[in-house]
Amino acid sequence: MSETTKYLLDESQIPTSWVNLPADLGPPPHPPLHPQTKEPLGPEDLAPLFAMALIEQEVSPEPEIEIPEEVADAYKLWRPTPLHRARRLEQALDTPAHIYYKYEGVSPAGSHKPNTAVAQAFYNKQEGVGKLVTETGAGQWGSALALACQMFGLECEVFMVGVSYDQKPYRRAMIETWDGTVHRSPSDLTEAGRSQAEHSSGSLGIAISEAVEIAAGAEDTKYTLGSVLNHVCLHQTVIGQEAIAQMELAGEYPDVVVGCVGGGSNFAGIAYPLLRRRLSEGLETRFLAAEPAACPTLTRGVFAYDFGDTVGMTPLMPMYTLGHDFVPPPVHAGGLRYHGDAPSLCALVKEGLVEARAVPQTSAFEAALRFARAEGIIPAPEPAHAIRTVFDEAEAAKEAGEERVILFNLCGHGHFDMAAYSAYLAGELEDLEFSEAEMDAALARLPEAPALT
Amino acid sequence: MSETTKYLLDESQIPTSWVNLPADLGPPPHPPLHPQTKEPLGPEDLAPLFAMALIEQEVSPEPEIEIPEEVADAYKLWRPTPLHRARRLEQALDTPAHIYYKYEGVSPAGSHKPNTAVAQAFYNKQEGVGKLVTETGAGQWGSALALACQMFGLECEVFMVGVSYDQKPYRRAMIETWDGTVHRSPSDLTEAGRSQAEHSSGSLGIAISEAVEIAAGAEDTKYTLGSVLNHVCLHQTVIGQEAIAQMELAGEYPDVVVGCVGGGSNFAGIAYPLLRRRLSEGLETRFLAAEPAACPTLTRGVFAYDFGDTVGMTPLMPMYTLGHDFVPPPVHAGGLRYHGDAPSLCALVKEGLVEARAVPQTSAFEAALRFARAEGIIPAPEPAHAIRTVFDEAEAAKEAGEERVILFNLCGHGHFDMAAYSAYLAGELEDLEFSEAEMDAALARLPEAPALT
Repeated sequence: MSETTKYLLDESQIPTSWVNLPADLGPPPHPPLHPQTKEPLGPEDLAPLFAMALIEQEVSPEPEIEIPEEVADAYKLWRPTPLHRARRLEQALDTPAHIYYKYEGVSPAGSHKPNTAVAQAFYNKQEGVGKLVTETGAGQWGSALALACQMFGLECEVFMVGVSYDQKPYRRAMIETWDGTVHRSPSDLTEAGRSQAEHSSGSLGIAISEAVEIAAGAEDTKYTLGSVLNHVCLHQTVIGQEAIAQMELAGEYPDVVVGCVGGGSNFAGIAYPLLRRRLSEGLETRFLAAEPAACPTLTRGVFAYDFGDTVGMTPLMPMYTLGHDFVPPPVHAGGLRYHGDAPSLCALVKEGLVEARAVPQTSAFEAALRFARAEGIIPAPEPAHAIRTVFDEAEAAKEAGEERVILFNLCGHGHFDMAAYSAYLAGELEDLEFSEAEMDAALARLPEAPALT
Repeated sequence: MSETTKYLLDESQIPTSWVNLPADLGPPPHPPLHPQTKEPLGPEDLAPLFAMALIEQEVSPEPEIEIPEEVADAYKLWRPTPLHRARRLEQALDTPAHIYYKYEGVSPAGSHKPNTAVAQAFYNKQEGVGKLVTETGAGQWGSALALACQMFGLECEVFMVGVSYDQKPYRRAMIETWDGTVHRSPSDLTEAGRSQAEHSSGSLGIAISEAVEIAAGAEDTKYTLGSVLNHVCLHQTVIGQEAIAQMELAGEYPDVVVGCVGGGSNFAGIAYPLLRRRLSEGLETRFLAAEPAACPTLTRGVFAYDFGDTVGMTPLMPMYTLGHDFVPPPVHAGGLRYHGDAPSLCALVKEGLVEARAVPQTSAFEAALRFARAEGIIPAPEPAHAIRTVFDEAEAAKEAGEERVILFNLCGHGHFDMAAYSAYLAGELEDLEFSEAEMDAALARLPEAPALT
């Protein structure tokens, strides 16, 4: 071989601003609505929960937003992240495609989540907030926020979905190592938790309700979210900007960009800077969003106003949804088990700028295992869905005899998910089917709101 | 801040040769001896177990040995590794010392072990070997070898100490993800294993015996070792060579170099290239080897010929030893629980070129936790011992009012050791004392051999 395997940047090449793609698309035709009044949401509606700087970013018309020096300094602990050319994988797949992956697993928390966690911690600290509270499922977001709070001198309180709290003690230990406090949800610390005590295994919806209740009730405490919202997707665009600079070093430009989608933030992170290029320069780049077949929000959901949480406390957001109280089967990609998706991403899917693909989990793990054996890195179950989609594209390139250039976001490693690999290797992993009847029933319970066009 | 945090090299700066420090020191005064004849060992004695290229490296008089292109290509999957300036830690410790760490946890296996695993796999493959067999305790070496075998198309068979096999299913899953086969040791696959069936929890000594038996009895199968031997330490010197280039970028040179010691290979990796400089350029650099107080080979052992394994199958090696059948208490730093140390390192300690420090495990974890909270990265229990020693040096620098430059090897992350962090955080981690009486008894059982001077 003796060819380049990794494209590295130095610290001076960390992006100096975030890419605010929604600004390119003009004022949103469907603004978020207040859950009671159904009127467009104002900043004052969000002020009890979020730092004002983040609320401003959420609706900013500026195409770029400068990264504060303190956040850039925090990024230096792990950024710039490497871009790999997957030469061994290309060989194993015997494909003419050129496969590149941006590896976000080098962050201390092992995923892309700290990109927004450190930004959210910084702005909250700057506004005098003393504590951040959030929910976490498998623990990736909770651990990233604990790390960020530690770096900026904030307290951190995490409501962790009960079943994950019991099954993933190591993610919990990670949060505590960074001095965060973890509660098993439902807890007896909140009214929401006490009211759901009989649902002992918990759910993301209940955990959100608990975190929001704590934040709303305390003067110096705010709530934070790890995906879905505009400002979260915004912070992740350091990924795609670095990837563009690194692809330039490689002398190539992607024909296809692939990411997995749970709430949409890692996909937005890699894709939005390249989508801006497509829009402004008339490029032909294709964008593929890979979601679990067991939670097929983009491929099977309806485009409608819905709540972001299960119990209906959040604003109504215009998005593809399976219904806010739809409960997806317990696939191992815990980070992708969400009934909705980022409104900004949903709008792009609606317009046909992003194509969605549904991936069964055994097929995702089969691809992840081949990836690990070729490239060494063991992927988290979430990006395994992107890897399956990359394999399909590489196969299509081979059939077409094309040197297709594929870029994907390897958003995290699987060190805390080895039980899932064990299950796959033992032949015990199954494809979980979602219930069409339950989805239909959940969709019948969508809140009353204006129809989307 | 806005100052540099990481010093990165690009792939063209991966070292092109390994540093063979023993060649600088001349022919060893105390060669390894055949376990039966007590005569100096010849290459033919090792040929049934090791690839000939590795046996040649073991006794090579060449000061530098070229890295084959195929090995350099394998290194590119994760090398060069970053050198960090620990600015946040310096601030937290309020020390005038400048603290740098070389981070080897970015390898796919999460430690420095793949540096030698890929080299050993390559040379064996080149000599027509079909399968490599080894033992592993906590699983760091076994997983690194599985990765390397996968990269070079070799089969890999790992005998894993029974108690670790039961307690660390995730390291086991990692080996299997890379297509390695793992046996619980003692197994019923070997005579050695069957004879030790009553010691069901196993030991490294038994696992070595099983692996050696398999390798000695099969035509196309060789044995491999993850530390102690000259050729293993040799392959790790990519670490120190990169660190020297990165310290040059930082415009500094270390006053003190620190590494933890189990068998000695990660310490040799960072230290030997800098030791060569000290010897050839008359520098004042100090070298500190940190070992567990519960397994104090360098600080409490005797300098004598002893077996490398528990049951007495290996050659006699001149080293500090606690006695080949001394059983250290079960500290969490499983990679440091070895009765002896690399003969090359022991000779340097004997000559006063390297100072040894014994670190109690609670004190190591206390330092690791502070490190994780300042720098983000969660260290493995083994380098936690080095970190404690760094803290002591930083404190001494503060007392002396000196801008001391400290470099240490952060040889791996702790993602598979979070149970130990949980125990520490819960106040359940204790300092384990070794038994002086048991050590004395083990030392009384040293094999008959010439005295070392």
